[in-house]
Amino acid sequence: MSEPDLAAALSGLSGWERAGDQIKRTFTFADFLASMRFVNQVALAAEEQQHHPDILVRWNRVTLTLSTHDAGGITERDFRLARHADTLAAGER
Amino acid sequence: MSEPDLAAALSGLSGWERAGDQIKRTFTFADFLASMRFVNQVALAAEEQQHHPDILVRWNRVTLTLSTHDAGGITERDFRLARHADTLAAGER
Repeated sequence: MSEPDLAAALSGLSGWERAGDQIKRTFTFADFLASMRFVNQVALAAEEQQHHPDILVRWNRVTLTLSTHDAGGITERDFRLARHADTLAAGER
Repeated sequence: MSEPDLAAALSGLSGWERAGDQIKRTFTFADFLASMRFVNQVALAAEEQQHHPDILVRWNRVTLTLSTHDAGGITERDFRLARHADTLAAGER
């Protein structure tokens, strides 16, 4: 993605930040089990899209880190999964 | 745990290393879905033991980081969960 496109896509999301050639967000839930429910929904979406985030679970917090390794940077596939994750998280809280 | 006890417990495990007041191990599986199966089994054990590791999933690799935050360091609870995770991982591979 071009820098302007990337900035525009990021500005359309809430809570996501850019970290080099990745985008990341930390979600906070009620407890560990809620985190795991979210993680499993994200895993399902990731497998469907064949696009897998790095997933870090720290009890009630889940950090997703997204990058398109094949493309060497951030692509529309990352934003697609990011938006999906946001929707899933909203359903969990 | 005393330093000698800690060293003895670590030497009884394979693949785990100490990182300050934590112990950690990275497990490698066949693919993302195998990683997720392992993660869910670990999550179940963690909830049963009320002792929750930090869990990082990177496609076919899962890193568990264990510490007993209440006690400010590594305790027998960490080694108990570590051994359990090793058993679960052995069943997945």
